[in-house]
Amino acid sequence: MSVLITGAEDFLSSVQTSETPLTPDPEAFLRERAAASSFSVEQVPLGSLADWRLDDRISHSSGRFFTVEGLSVQTNFGPTPQWCQPIIVQPDIGVLGILVKRIHGVYHFLMQAKMEPGNSALVQYSATVQATPSNYQRVHGGKSTPYLDYFLNPGTRVVIFDQLLSEHSSWYLYKRNRNMIVEIPAHEEVPIAAEFTWLTLGQLRRLLARGNRVNMNARTVLASIAYALPGTPRGGGRESTEFHAAVVRSHQRQTGDGDVASAMTWLIDQKARFNLDVRRISLREMAGWICDEESIRHREGHYFRIVGLSVGATSREVAAWAQPMLRPNPGNVVTFVCRRRQDTLEFLVQAMAQPGATDRVELAATVQLTPGNYNGPQDLPPLAELLHCDPSWVVVDAVQSEDGGRFQHADTRHLVIQLPEHHPIEAPDNYRWMSLGLLNRLMRLGYYVNVETRSLMACLL
Amino acid sequence: MSVLITGAEDFLSSVQTSETPLTPDPEAFLRERAAASSFSVEQVPLGSLADWRLDDRISHSSGRFFTVEGLSVQTNFGPTPQWCQPIIVQPDIGVLGILVKRIHGVYHFLMQAKMEPGNSALVQYSATVQATPSNYQRVHGGKSTPYLDYFLNPGTRVVIFDQLLSEHSSWYLYKRNRNMIVEIPAHEEVPIAAEFTWLTLGQLRRLLARGNRVNMNARTVLASIAYALPGTPRGGGRESTEFHAAVVRSHQRQTGDGDVASAMTWLIDQKARFNLDVRRISLREMAGWICDEESIRHREGHYFRIVGLSVGATSREVAAWAQPMLRPNPGNVVTFVCRRRQDTLEFLVQAMAQPGATDRVELAATVQLTPGNYNGPQDLPPLAELLHCDPSWVVVDAVQSEDGGRFQHADTRHLVIQLPEHHPIEAPDNYRWMSLGLLNRLMRLGYYVNVETRSLMACLL
Repeated sequence: MSVLITGAEDFLSSVQTSETPLTPDPEAFLRERAAASSFSVEQVPLGSLADWRLDDRISHSSGRFFTVEGLSVQTNFGPTPQWCQPIIVQPDIGVLGILVKRIHGVYHFLMQAKMEPGNSALVQYSATVQATPSNYQRVHGGKSTPYLDYFLNPGTRVVIFDQLLSEHSSWYLYKRNRNMIVEIPAHEEVPIAAEFTWLTLGQLRRLLARGNRVNMNARTVLASIAYALPGTPRGGGRESTEFHAAVVRSHQRQTGDGDVASAMTWLIDQKARFNLDVRRISLREMAGWICDEESIRHREGHYFRIVGLSVGATSREVAAWAQPMLRPNPGNVVTFVCRRRQDTLEFLVQAMAQPGATDRVELAATVQLTPGNYNGPQDLPPLAELLHCDPSWVVVDAVQSEDGGRFQHADTRHLVIQLPEHHPIEAPDNYRWMSLGLLNRLMRLGYYVNVETRSLMACLL
Repeated sequence: MSVLITGAEDFLSSVQTSETPLTPDPEAFLRERAAASSFSVEQVPLGSLADWRLDDRISHSSGRFFTVEGLSVQTNFGPTPQWCQPIIVQPDIGVLGILVKRIHGVYHFLMQAKMEPGNSALVQYSATVQATPSNYQRVHGGKSTPYLDYFLNPGTRVVIFDQLLSEHSSWYLYKRNRNMIVEIPAHEEVPIAAEFTWLTLGQLRRLLARGNRVNMNARTVLASIAYALPGTPRGGGRESTEFHAAVVRSHQRQTGDGDVASAMTWLIDQKARFNLDVRRISLREMAGWICDEESIRHREGHYFRIVGLSVGATSREVAAWAQPMLRPNPGNVVTFVCRRRQDTLEFLVQAMAQPGATDRVELAATVQLTPGNYNGPQDLPPLAELLHCDPSWVVVDAVQSEDGGRFQHADTRHLVIQLPEHHPIEAPDNYRWMSLGLLNRLMRLGYYVNVETRSLMACLL
C-alpha cells in the first residue's frame, strides 16, 4: 500500500467520539453475545483429535488449515545461538478486514463479537472479517463468512488500507495476513448480522485500555490507522488528554520520504548484522522436547506446549471441532518506552530477529519479555529493568490476548512507559527512537513492524 | 528506500552523454584489463574441491560463503506441482554498490573490470563494489575490498539508492543483496585503482546493448535508476531515438501513490492465489537427481548441474581457489513484451512464484523460458509463441551473463518485443501492464520485482 494514506482526519474525529446511539454500551453488547452463545472448551490429548494426525508433524486429514512442525534455529541475535522448537506453519493468507462507514458524519467500525476458543475472555470484538481460505472455502463445510465479499471484491468502495503484515514470528513460520480497511459509502445500506455492531474509534480505544476486549486480529488492523497525512502537520487541541495530544502529534512526525529512507538504511544495516538460519525438521528430532500422544512440551517446562483442544460452540462457522493449540507459559510482556521530544513522543524500537520472520528482522517493541525463555537474570534482554519502573511512568497497562484461534491463554501484558524528561537511557546499537508517524509509514511498506509492536500501537490510538 | 527518488535529471543527462575523455574507449579498457590478468578456469570433480565437503549438503570448512542443499518444492504455480532440486543457500547480505560523481557536470559511474570465473566473457564491467561479508571480512585471507567503506559508512555523501533486492530465486534460497548507489561530491578526490574507470550512463547503455559486457551485479544496481521524479512529468526531445524517448516517458507514468496502491492490491491478490511450500532436505534425498563425487545432476539431464570449478587468477581477491558452481542447461530467455499507449510504453509483467523467493511471489518478465525445464509444448509458459515473432518487433536483443561467481556459463538472452499497435494479446489473470515508472516504484519497496526483470530494466536504460 506504499504511502497512500487516506482517512486521517476522519479517524481523528472518530477517536474523539466516545459515544454513539448505534452501540450505547459496547460492554453490554459483548456480554449479551457471550450469553447468547453456548460453548465448552476442553483440553484433550493431542493424539485424540479427530481428523488430525501426529507423526513427523501434526497435520489435518484435508491437508488444509495448518501444520505443527519442528524447527531448528541458529542465530546471533540474543543470548541463545541454537535451539529447536515446534512452530505453526500456515501458508494460507487470511483476510483480516474492518468495514468503516461514515454514520452521522463520524467513522464507525463494524465489529464482530466473536468467540475464540483460546482466549481467556472468550468473546471479544474482532474485525468484521477474519477468515483464512480454509475457512471461507468451507473446508469443514461450515457457514459462509459474512461480509467477506466487501474485501475480496471491494469494487468502487475506497480501500483505505491493504497490506500483508506478519503475525507472531516466534510461534508461526512465515505467517502473514492481509490487513484491510474498506470504506462503505455513507449512502450504501449494509445488513447487520446479530453478532455485529458499529463502534466509533473512541469506543474501541476505551475497550483497548481495559484489555481483553478487542482481539488480536482486530488490533493488527486498527494499528494501521494513521492520524497524519504525510507533510500536513496539524494542531491538536481537541484530544481528550495531554498524553493523547502528544500521541497524535507523534503521528505527524518523521513522515517525510527522507525520514523513511534513513530508517530503512538503518534497518538494512541491522539485517546485515544479524543472521538467522532456520530449517524445518521432524517433531521427533527436536532436541530438548518431548512429543507424545498427550502433548509436545519442553523437557524443562520452558516456553510453551502444543496441546489438543475440543470445542463445542454455536457461534462459529461449525458447531464443534477439535484442534491443536499452542499454549505459552504465562507472563508475556511487551513494552514500549517513550519520551517527550519537544511537544511530541518518540518510541524506542529495536531490530529483532525472530525465527518465523519472513525477512529475518523486523522492528520490535522496546522490551519483549517471555519469562519462561530465560534461565536467569543474565539472559534478560536489554532494558528489562524498566519493567520495575516507578508506577507513575506507566501510561498504558492492559492485558490483551494473542490470536485465540491458535494460541491458548496467551495473555500478553501491554505496557507503555513514558520516561521523565532528561532520564538517561542507554540502548544497544540495534535500538532507535522513532515517532508513531515513522512507524506507521514503515508498517505500510510490508514486513517491517512486528505484530507485538503493532498491537501496542493499537493501544496508543 | 521507499519513494525518495533523487538524481533523476542527472541520470537522464548522463544517458544522453555517449562519450567521456575519462574513458574514451570502454571496450578497449575491458580488453586491456583482460590481457593484464592471467587466469585459468577448469571444471573439476565436486569431490576434489579443497576445503569443501560434500555430504547431506555441500559446505565450506570455514562454515562461511554458501552451501548447496536439497530443496523439496510444492506449488500450484506452473505446470509442475512438486519437485526436488539443489539450491544455493547464502544467508549473508552482500553489498552491490556503484559510486557516482558529477564530473564535467555529468554523472559518471565508477565501474570495475572484473573477472568472474563462471562468465562466458570472463572480464566484464561490475559495480564499484560487489562483496559479501565472507569476502570483505577476508575469510580466505585475501586482499581488502577497495571502496567498500564508501558504502558501509557513507557519512555525509548522498545515498541515492539503498535497498535489499532479491537474486535469482530459482537457484538461490532467500538470497538478497544490498543494492546501493552513493554519490561522491564533485569536489571530493577519489583514488582510482587500475581495474577501475569512470563511465557515463550513455556508455553503459551501449555496452548493455552489445551484451556480456556489464555483469549481473552491475545490472541489478543500474536497474534502480529512475528517470522520473514522481509527479513531475517532463518533456522528452533530447533522447537519441524515438523508442528511447518513449522509454523515458514510461518512467514518468503511473508513479503516483494511487497507482502503486492499486498495483500492490493486485499483487497481494496474486500472493493469496499461488501457494509455495519449500523444505530444505538432504542432497541425498532429492528424487530424480544423482549426487556423486563428480557432480549433482538430474537423471534425465534437465535443468542444471552442480559442478566443481578450479580457478587460477591474479585479478581477484585471492590468487587461486576452487568452488562449486551451478551450471544451467543452455537456452535461457527472458522477454519483456511492451506496447505503445498514447506516446509511452507499457510492459506486460506477471506475478510468478519461484522456489527461493523470500515472499513467494514477485513480478517477473512476460516470458521467462528455461528450455531444459519443459518436456514438450504443453509445458510452455503463456505467450511463449511471441519468441517467434516478426523480427522487426524486437527492440532489444542481447545476451547477458548471470552472476559469474556462482553460475557457470549462465547466458541469458534478453529480449524486448514491441507489439504493433492494436495487436491483440490475451494474457492470464496473473499478468498486468505496467509502466517503467510503476515498476521502479514497486522495486523500491522491497522484494517485488525479480532479478530477471530488473536485468531487462537495465537493458532499457
